[in-house]
Amino acid sequence: MESKYGGYMGRFLDIDLSEGKISDYEVSDRIRELYLGGKGLAARILYDELKSGIDPLGPDNVLIVNTGPLVNSGAPTSNRFNVSTKSPLTGAILSSNSGGSFGLYLKRAGFDGIIIRGKAEKPTWIHVEEGKAELRDASHLWGLDTEKTQKELPAKAGKMVIGPAGENGVLYAGIFSQERTAGRGGAGAVMGSKNLKAVTAYGKGKAPVANEEKFQEDVKKWIKILKSHPTTGETLPAYGTTVFVNRCNATNTLPTHNFSLGSFEQAEKTSGEALADTLLVKNYGCVGCVVKCGRRVLVNGKEVKGPEYETAGLFGANLENSDLEKICEWNYLSDLMGMDTISVGNTIGFAMELNEKGLWKTGLSFGNTEGIGELIEDIAYKRGIGAELALGTRRLAAKYGGWEFAMNAKGMELAAYEPRGAFGHALGYAVGNRGGCHLAGGYMIYLEANGPLTMNPLTDRAKPQFTTFLQTMLDAISNTGSCGFTLFPLIPAIAFKLNPHGTIYRIISKSMEFLGPAVELLVRFPNLLKLVPPMSLMQHPKVLTDLTGMKVTLRTFIEIGERTFLVERMFNLREGFSTKDDTLPERSTKELQGGNPKAIVPLKKMLPRYYRTRGLDARGFPFEKTLKRLEMDIR
Amino acid sequence: MESKYGGYMGRFLDIDLSEGKISDYEVSDRIRELYLGGKGLAARILYDELKSGIDPLGPDNVLIVNTGPLVNSGAPTSNRFNVSTKSPLTGAILSSNSGGSFGLYLKRAGFDGIIIRGKAEKPTWIHVEEGKAELRDASHLWGLDTEKTQKELPAKAGKMVIGPAGENGVLYAGIFSQERTAGRGGAGAVMGSKNLKAVTAYGKGKAPVANEEKFQEDVKKWIKILKSHPTTGETLPAYGTTVFVNRCNATNTLPTHNFSLGSFEQAEKTSGEALADTLLVKNYGCVGCVVKCGRRVLVNGKEVKGPEYETAGLFGANLENSDLEKICEWNYLSDLMGMDTISVGNTIGFAMELNEKGLWKTGLSFGNTEGIGELIEDIAYKRGIGAELALGTRRLAAKYGGWEFAMNAKGMELAAYEPRGAFGHALGYAVGNRGGCHLAGGYMIYLEANGPLTMNPLTDRAKPQFTTFLQTMLDAISNTGSCGFTLFPLIPAIAFKLNPHGTIYRIISKSMEFLGPAVELLVRFPNLLKLVPPMSLMQHPKVLTDLTGMKVTLRTFIEIGERTFLVERMFNLREGFSTKDDTLPERSTKELQGGNPKAIVPLKKMLPRYYRTRGLDARGFPFEKTLKRLEMDIR
Repeated sequence: MESKYGGYMGRFLDIDLSEGKISDYEVSDRIRELYLGGKGLAARILYDELKSGIDPLGPDNVLIVNTGPLVNSGAPTSNRFNVSTKSPLTGAILSSNSGGSFGLYLKRAGFDGIIIRGKAEKPTWIHVEEGKAELRDASHLWGLDTEKTQKELPAKAGKMVIGPAGENGVLYAGIFSQERTAGRGGAGAVMGSKNLKAVTAYGKGKAPVANEEKFQEDVKKWIKILKSHPTTGETLPAYGTTVFVNRCNATNTLPTHNFSLGSFEQAEKTSGEALADTLLVKNYGCVGCVVKCGRRVLVNGKEVKGPEYETAGLFGANLENSDLEKICEWNYLSDLMGMDTISVGNTIGFAMELNEKGLWKTGLSFGNTEGIGELIEDIAYKRGIGAELALGTRRLAAKYGGWEFAMNAKGMELAAYEPRGAFGHALGYAVGNRGGCHLAGGYMIYLEANGPLTMNPLTDRAKPQFTTFLQTMLDAISNTGSCGFTLFPLIPAIAFKLNPHGTIYRIISKSMEFLGPAVELLVRFPNLLKLVPPMSLMQHPKVLTDLTGMKVTLRTFIEIGERTFLVERMFNLREGFSTKDDTLPERSTKELQGGNPKAIVPLKKMLPRYYRTRGLDARGFPFEKTLKRLEMDIR
Repeated sequence: MESKYGGYMGRFLDIDLSEGKISDYEVSDRIRELYLGGKGLAARILYDELKSGIDPLGPDNVLIVNTGPLVNSGAPTSNRFNVSTKSPLTGAILSSNSGGSFGLYLKRAGFDGIIIRGKAEKPTWIHVEEGKAELRDASHLWGLDTEKTQKELPAKAGKMVIGPAGENGVLYAGIFSQERTAGRGGAGAVMGSKNLKAVTAYGKGKAPVANEEKFQEDVKKWIKILKSHPTTGETLPAYGTTVFVNRCNATNTLPTHNFSLGSFEQAEKTSGEALADTLLVKNYGCVGCVVKCGRRVLVNGKEVKGPEYETAGLFGANLENSDLEKICEWNYLSDLMGMDTISVGNTIGFAMELNEKGLWKTGLSFGNTEGIGELIEDIAYKRGIGAELALGTRRLAAKYGGWEFAMNAKGMELAAYEPRGAFGHALGYAVGNRGGCHLAGGYMIYLEANGPLTMNPLTDRAKPQFTTFLQTMLDAISNTGSCGFTLFPLIPAIAFKLNPHGTIYRIISKSMEFLGPAVELLVRFPNLLKLVPPMSLMQHPKVLTDLTGMKVTLRTFIEIGERTFLVERMFNLREGFSTKDDTLPERSTKELQGGNPKAIVPLKKMLPRYYRTRGLDARGFPFEKTLKRLEMDIR
């Protein structure tokens, strides 16, 4: 169905690999108004298309690959594509997004997204070009790593591919585009289960723009905002996301020794600063990005992609490894194999503690880097103990025990933020729809520990409300195709200049604790957002209005985020998830952190307020009035 | 609030142990009409009185001890009392009922029930007599076993007590009255957590009877029905419940080697028939019972209570033990310690398999009876590995692994029926509100494997509907104070005379498979029940009408059962339980039974139909129309 709105190509492919059938999937403008695109629109489609209880790795699962209106529009840092499916790792809904050039080229090829069903008989590759799609034989690509696979595919095209891990059904295999990844939750395994090795796209199309002049003007402002902000304009370009290693280490949020501690003596050796002094060759960015957080580093004399913060944390401190070159090597190897480095690192840490406690004798031990490279390959090929690690922490715990220190939420391995060091971020892990991912709490950690000094990380006050708010914002932003980093400018630059021991900081951080009720009001009555000064920095609603011709206000933008969260939650509820699954391992909620300060996550205290702010009842289901307010017609 | 209805004493005690305060709790006649008494009425009160998320072993938990209208009325086999609370073993609602004389004397003392709150400062004993209650010091009783404790208490009184296991917080400690037990789910640990050692009652009161003449007439008929039925009139008096050992063994439903198999070569040595030939001294019954299924046996020269079927199965075949005297000895010891023999036996079996597989080295092994007696004491006193076994299978699995063969549902250890041998009973385990107990499926096993030949155990056809129906009947019967065995006469005696290889049996058992839709209709439109001939044997509605003066019909009686199930389920839903918890371990659903026939439980196939028959939506929540039809005002 063509769209009356700018920013959309107006076509959505429907490919059935079992039948070899290619057709158009109808997406209405009403759905676009309610969800924009990205994970929200994909979740809405999955809710309709999937029956509950299906096997995520069976032919009944569906993989949606799609974009948002800002992709290929010229808006900065906004060319990401989204993949949504039922996760084989968690059994919950999964949405995962990635940079690279695939999203841009998919739209240039004439499509806003693709819904992929069934299972091909033999290895297959989907190629989309100038309004047409075809299925091609990928037998010659099967078995190749993600780098070689991409080299074999047409140079001009945008690509998304899987590596051996995806082919072999590693439950946290990802999808790779250039050197970026839709990493978490096993979308790569879903591709593999469908015998789909790659999707490529090429074209020269462009979606219409409703108000070109105004759009260009607002985009320019936006670029200025991103470039002048301390995080997106300075630290991320200079040090990449690994700049967070030292910051998290200083605030006891850097997981160490399988999340036993929040800091690591030798953390500095694994930091972005150390990387810049040693192995870094240069920084780079996704197509159309003005931040350019990517790293190129030297590993064994070869220039390859450098690690993200999450990888540095989970391959570094969490395994008590201070060898930065090893981190870069394992990162590159995991990428080649096509796996999520967060789950790889977290699961290896869990196996090390199981060994330490005598529950599963594997010889793996903290601080010992020997054999880890081989183990990573063994995971991808499911060889030896690698075959068991390929199942993730939750399934390992089911077999060997250690439930209380299997560091996952809803079966997804926690990212590199130690929950007991930042209660809002911890709450995000627990309630995240895809499980304990780094973005589950709208990256609350930035307000609590690794960003400017704003909130006391060790109080539960106002955390449910701020977590709700940031989750909602991040969900809405994801739907547009923008990178999550475009959320950072909401924090005024002035906050970075505060003295952590000064009176002004103390006043601000204390005041934040009293803002809970105000933030709850803002979520319920988003019109009030106009009264909040930093919100004037939000360019998304303006740019979207210029581009699409919809009237996107701050209020409707927030509502889009709420709807996105809720449709994903309702998917999970239908699968049998409940408030009991909004939880964290006992290590986080019952065991005092060994370091300083000693704390446990007061999860039970935060959850009721969180549900209320979210418009959910005590059982975690949306109130009728919430659904009505958001004009959601699903039950 | 006094009652206008016969059968009720019209008073319900409210005792706050923290404050030492004793008052009356108001129960309205409307609630009596909707739930009668027992577990249904108790669940309705718990739903109001408990907040979700409270610690079952903390002072916020509440223990309800109550009776039904038939208790102390002269109706046969109907003097049971019920205890309801939030279970420390499962976190779900728990109702557990027991024979013995306590229920009878509680009513004679002037009360239909007691709600017990808070936590006493020191060991306490509640004594109720002739309309008054008082708290007495029980320091001299603390530490005594269940037999000694009862001896120390007034001889004339009805008693319910705990043993060392309850005092020490063993998660499956029970409550004991004479030699009967409210065994499952840890109500004894809840009493212990409140420093409550015993409740005693004495009095000479009697509730009014609405229509004395008609009541006596219908009671006589009822006694005749019970005495002339093959199960309640012949086999149970002669062999006790252990008569089921040989029957289950013959139908592959006797759990063996931690539920790996469904039959045991030496099962016959542990059967009720073998018991009758060797250790049996006599049979006995609870006060007012005409069935008299209890056994008195000789253990080490002393006459003590004999084992039930569940105990014989879980201390026998499941541990590959054929020594009947050991079974009797461990049974008596578990009783003295005050623990549920089902969970004790199941958990020891799990520990044996963990040892066998090298996951937890304890030296416990199948077929080896040495040291088990000491281990049972160690569990009660939480010494050595006993301290870990005291946590039950689910928590052991969380520590040591073996999740797929930790034989529990919702954290409650499965009773002595191997699920793969009887699909309807297995479904009952999965959906039971208190977890995988022997009664969770309304004792479907009786229709499938150990009763008269009626249904093919290895088909899923019609099982969801029959399970719903029997659950509903059993819930309604429990509420009256009657023993569950009064359900058996619904099976016409003629069924026992069928030849298992004959044509008539084949026709009947095949026809049963096609009755699913009819049974579903019966549950929805209980007026149709009048058309079912065996239902004329149901004396409960008639006797209740005579006694209370309410107009209890088959229809309203069934509705009472439905309400009971639903209010318990809604309690669990509020605690975060969901369809995901309606499940069985993988051994039951994925691993072929080693014996013959080879089968797995087709749980996923049965659940949707079960939910529909129950009036639940696909997420397991009651439809609005279900609640409306049943006039339930809770949400």
